[in-house]
Amino acid sequence: MQYEPTPATSPHREKDRITYDRRLVHQILDESLICHVGFDASGPLVLPMIHARVEEMLYLHMSTGSGLRLSEMPVPVCVTTTLVDGLVMAKSQFHHSLNYRCVVVRGTAEQVTDPDEKRVALAAITDHVSPGRSAASRPANSREFVATAVLRVPLRAVSAKVRSGPPEDEVEDAELPYWSGVIPTRLSAGSPQVTHAGTQSVPDYGPRFRG
Amino acid sequence: MQYEPTPATSPHREKDRITYDRRLVHQILDESLICHVGFDASGPLVLPMIHARVEEMLYLHMSTGSGLRLSEMPVPVCVTTTLVDGLVMAKSQFHHSLNYRCVVVRGTAEQVTDPDEKRVALAAITDHVSPGRSAASRPANSREFVATAVLRVPLRAVSAKVRSGPPEDEVEDAELPYWSGVIPTRLSAGSPQVTHAGTQSVPDYGPRFRG
Repeated sequence: MQYEPTPATSPHREKDRITYDRRLVHQILDESLICHVGFDASGPLVLPMIHARVEEMLYLHMSTGSGLRLSEMPVPVCVTTTLVDGLVMAKSQFHHSLNYRCVVVRGTAEQVTDPDEKRVALAAITDHVSPGRSAASRPANSREFVATAVLRVPLRAVSAKVRSGPPEDEVEDAELPYWSGVIPTRLSAGSPQVTHAGTQSVPDYGPRFRG
Repeated sequence: MQYEPTPATSPHREKDRITYDRRLVHQILDESLICHVGFDASGPLVLPMIHARVEEMLYLHMSTGSGLRLSEMPVPVCVTTTLVDGLVMAKSQFHHSLNYRCVVVRGTAEQVTDPDEKRVALAAITDHVSPGRSAASRPANSREFVATAVLRVPLRAVSAKVRSGPPEDEVEDAELPYWSGVIPTRLSAGSPQVTHAGTQSVPDYGPRFRG
């Protein structure tokens, strides 16, 4: 199950790291908490947004202060998300790198106007950040529903890029007195800070952080 | 010490969350491991890069496969980086949010051609990922030096956006049987994976992760 490579998603070099594997793309989109959305606003502008994937549609929760004007929809966008998996420390500075998994989605964003689709998208966005949370919170009332904007970008021109594994040290560097290896990194959760000390116990938001 | 607000960095709403404070901008740029760089490539394209700040200059380590062609420099860019500090769980879905610190830099990227500046930038990029590492690894030889591209973007049109604190629950939601609070998040490091089991002990890369 592959996405079709397109001119918009074909790299110029390092082709070995590029993949169009649908399952991998889905995994990266689902695991990454936020994305960075690029569009033109008198020059390039890149803003963070919360996304959620529903099948082959990517939904974006639009900040009202984002500068991406609803009146200008549909608009060409690029949605990119990157998970940093590790610091790659080589003997040489040149071979220092990061281990990462990145997805790039190019396409056109349009506002979701169908109320049913919007409801599904809002629940998906809530559950994307914390699985199961849409059933454990009050859904939007009509005023809130109208005040929220959701964008949709179909997953068509999509690619993933992955680096994993140890540093690629040069053979002639082997005896240099420098440490070589990988420091794994991941987003982790701290102790919940409760706002309302009611009878409710802290929900199990572990799935995102247990991996 | 403030950056000058410009039309390129003035938000449309939620102005309370926007700041131009120079020290805060520096902190966010220095703490964030990677950035997302937006530019035009037959439509918007956003790619992750490693950055480093030296005074009021932002340097970008350019992947050779990035699609940002050196022959087309200088080029308008937007460099955005976002630190996710927490999942904000309200009683209502509408007030769900993330705590975050984000910097948006708009400007023009050009290639660093001066060898001395490039050497300083490469060391800064190495030390950005792991403080002190440029002195604990082999610097680029002449072949590697030529094979690496570094871009520079001056910090002029710069803004930061921050959300912190608890969810903004509605008063009328207080009795709803849903947990409300914040789950703090941060990038954390796991156990180092050694490539060459030599006599070198693992360096202290803790500063980035101890905060």
